[in-house]
Amino acid sequence: ERAFSSSPRWQLHTKEMNEETLSSLKVNQSRLMEDIHFTSQWGEGQKWGSASTETGMSRLSLSDADKKARDWFVQATQALGCNTTIDEMGNIFAVRPGIRNDGPPTFVGSHLDTQPTGGRYDGILGVTAGVEMLRVLADNWVETEYPVGVVNWTNEEGARFPISMVSSGVWSGHIPLSTAHSLREVHPGTATLSSELSRIGYLGTVPASHNAVPMAAHFELHIEQGPLLESTSRKIGIVKGVQAYRWYTVTVTGQDCHTGTTDFENRADALLAAAKMILHSHRLATARGALASTGILNLKPGSTNTVPGSVRFSLDIRAPADSTVDMLEADVLADFARIAAGEEVDGISDGCTPGRPCEVSFTTDSVSPAVKFHPDCIHAVTEAAGSALGPEAEKLTMEMVSGAGHDSVYTSKRVPTSMIFVPCRDGISHNPREYTSPEDCALGAQVLLQAVLRYDRMRAE
Amino acid sequence: ERAFSSSPRWQLHTKEMNEETLSSLKVNQSRLMEDIHFTSQWGEGQKWGSASTETGMSRLSLSDADKKARDWFVQATQALGCNTTIDEMGNIFAVRPGIRNDGPPTFVGSHLDTQPTGGRYDGILGVTAGVEMLRVLADNWVETEYPVGVVNWTNEEGARFPISMVSSGVWSGHIPLSTAHSLREVHPGTATLSSELSRIGYLGTVPASHNAVPMAAHFELHIEQGPLLESTSRKIGIVKGVQAYRWYTVTVTGQDCHTGTTDFENRADALLAAAKMILHSHRLATARGALASTGILNLKPGSTNTVPGSVRFSLDIRAPADSTVDMLEADVLADFARIAAGEEVDGISDGCTPGRPCEVSFTTDSVSPAVKFHPDCIHAVTEAAGSALGPEAEKLTMEMVSGAGHDSVYTSKRVPTSMIFVPCRDGISHNPREYTSPEDCALGAQVLLQAVLRYDRMRAE
Ligand SMILES: NC(=O)NCCC(=O)O
Ligand SMILES: NC(=O)NCCC(=O)O
Repeated sequence: ERAFSSSPRWQLHTKEMNEETLSSLKVNQSRLMEDIHFTSQWGEGQKWGSASTETGMSRLSLSDADKKARDWFVQATQALGCNTTIDEMGNIFAVRPGIRNDGPPTFVGSHLDTQPTGGRYDGILGVTAGVEMLRVLADNWVETEYPVGVVNWTNEEGARFPISMVSSGVWSGHIPLSTAHSLREVHPGTATLSSELSRIGYLGTVPASHNAVPMAAHFELHIEQGPLLESTSRKIGIVKGVQAYRWYTVTVTGQDCHTGTTDFENRADALLAAAKMILHSHRLATARGALASTGILNLKPGSTNTVPGSVRFSLDIRAPADSTVDMLEADVLADFARIAAGEEVDGISDGCTPGRPCEVSFTTDSVSPAVKFHPDCIHAVTEAAGSALGPEAEKLTMEMVSGAGHDSVYTSKRVPTSMIFVPCRDGISHNPREYTSPEDCALGAQVLLQAVLRYDRMRAE
Repeated sequence: ERAFSSSPRWQLHTKEMNEETLSSLKVNQSRLMEDIHFTSQWGEGQKWGSASTETGMSRLSLSDADKKARDWFVQATQALGCNTTIDEMGNIFAVRPGIRNDGPPTFVGSHLDTQPTGGRYDGILGVTAGVEMLRVLADNWVETEYPVGVVNWTNEEGARFPISMVSSGVWSGHIPLSTAHSLREVHPGTATLSSELSRIGYLGTVPASHNAVPMAAHFELHIEQGPLLESTSRKIGIVKGVQAYRWYTVTVTGQDCHTGTTDFENRADALLAAAKMILHSHRLATARGALASTGILNLKPGSTNTVPGSVRFSLDIRAPADSTVDMLEADVLADFARIAAGEEVDGISDGCTPGRPCEVSFTTDSVSPAVKFHPDCIHAVTEAAGSALGPEAEKLTMEMVSGAGHDSVYTSKRVPTSMIFVPCRDGISHNPREYTSPEDCALGAQVLLQAVLRYDRMRAE
């Protein structure tokens, strides 16, 4: 079975392209930016500037807005000659046939879901750059040796359903389908991930598995989400791996009581204990050169004159080495228990009247060990950056480790994977003001295109 | 105009009763407890024991459940010969005529609203004991010199609409009607106090004012909500005043950012700053022998992997003297600003990596200065306790200052007022497990009845 069997003779075959021809294939910056801003109509978020494109995004996974962005992705890729497959996790795989179809596609992937108050680039750039790659291939009558694909992964953010990269995690076999399907929304509601997949019509029947939907490799273009590229005036990050992280839910139980009649001695104040824990987690992380963050906190009963008897908060800890995360986890478990019991921990209670003990419990919601990307993919990205940046390439690129998790973490456990970073203003992400210039978006997309073509050529050799 | 003009000759007139006759008028414990537990069907809360009465209450002001409790109050008091008046704040005044009606009624008052996870006694005991008083007067054909009344005040708790005692505050002229009417629910919703009054049919037309609905005096029976009576084996608290308190909303603004890619140095973490403030408010209060409490905390955007850019929390500070509250307020304003700016305050940031500054702002939501009750009312309560407790009275009573606010705070600014406390188990209140024994409920109601009759007799003399 051949793709484009009716296509003209002068089409380009990756295997036969010389360096000059290959490098002459160029993404179209305006078309890419148009895709980014056009699709941002679905789930448009907070306005932060005067231009119409100066708003953030609020496109939680499997929301109505996400459904519209998905529909666009399916239509756009089908119009470009792709076959689309939707799996049980709602992952959408769009595949453009190659000359030979006896090997799996080389994939580009990222995600169209966003944070509740996120920006226009996180994830979206990676998927739209994949679509732009398909357009460049179509415009130039390029035939790749093997198929190439673009995948939109479901709920990468973990912002609505609290496991990040959950659907690439199911695909790679590291997260059970049932765990993923039964995830509940973090904000009170009755929806589960699977009920929302059904509701918006994206509960596919193909197994969410690397066996059912195999890949040859996975490349992901993403904004850095941190300040390093910008502050060192680099244009492209060659990502060699991703730091480790874990997410927990911490529940502190004390006793509701009256704020006006209950002495400090007689209180089991769950919020005071939680405040001490949050503060202390920062101390512990600082001591280990790691990060600790709390992004969600809910309490009960929630009345000005009732001391809260119950507090639940998220804890996200990260470090480059798994061993550091292990040690930080042990610190947190031990010291939170001591804080709950009312013990003095590093002077944290100095000057407070000791109260009655609270109880604390933990659940581990997600574990993402440190990963290292594949040398072949890193090599393809390095070459691609050289092609895109020319003689300045060495000065304008840097090798780096990602602070954030990405679907490439899970794909890397099954197939050669690597990532490309582009700078974002002030290192700000997960914020409506997240911004990457059109030039940098296009440059990243250009490196992505070149990396995929080079990887395909390498496979052909 | 005479009440009970067809009533038989042997009816009792307070003015003419001797000590023995007066003391022989007794509340009916089972009937009182039946009213408490029967009305608790509306807004029944968390179950904590096996008996059917062992549940808490969740009867937020102006909810559907509160409407049902109000309807019961109107019907019960009308059936006992009272005229009922509903004012613009939904306060319900039930008045039983006296022999002479050229003076205002002596009132008993409290509230039927509860905390979201409150108990069966806070407020409810005071209103049902008032109804029980009316029953005793009716059963015994008692005619009081002046009218006596029972008032159910709206939104005493301040749990749904965030000013406590707001409706007695409007009645006394200390809170503008427009401020009260436009109060919004503390939990996200669009309802205001006045929209909810209309919705449940309790937006009266009579002005909410001590001029339109005058009182001669206000007596309030309440559970102590603290541990002092129980721990000293006393039965009755003779309340001489109420401590001062103030409520604030504190808003901390930082910047949303990614938890995995943003170093501590580059974060303006609004939740970390809020945690430091909450902890520090406890230190400041401890140093001043005062109380500080946070019962509500909301943050945005609320995602595990986004550092919160915005946190809003309630702060409730209390002390017996207004001057202490003044000083504590000044401490809090100064130190919260320093914490937001990232300055070192009493070692609170020791061991944390300093981040970027946040901003902090305050609104004062409610101010309740310390009050002293009226000697005439305190005297009536002391005499009443003597009548109820007999020779043991001195050992079984104590004079005390209330830690909690009550509607008596505002009535005391216009008319002689005092309160009666009864013990509650372990001092626990604003908790489903709040409990006062039937004997203690009845004893409190007995003292209330006797105090009102004595006060009426005093007025007649
Ligand atoms: N890139 C990104 O924001 N991923 C979400 C997973 C994480 O929290 O690192
Ligand atoms: N008694 C009572 O709980 N009143 C609410 C007002 C306060 O917070 O003190």
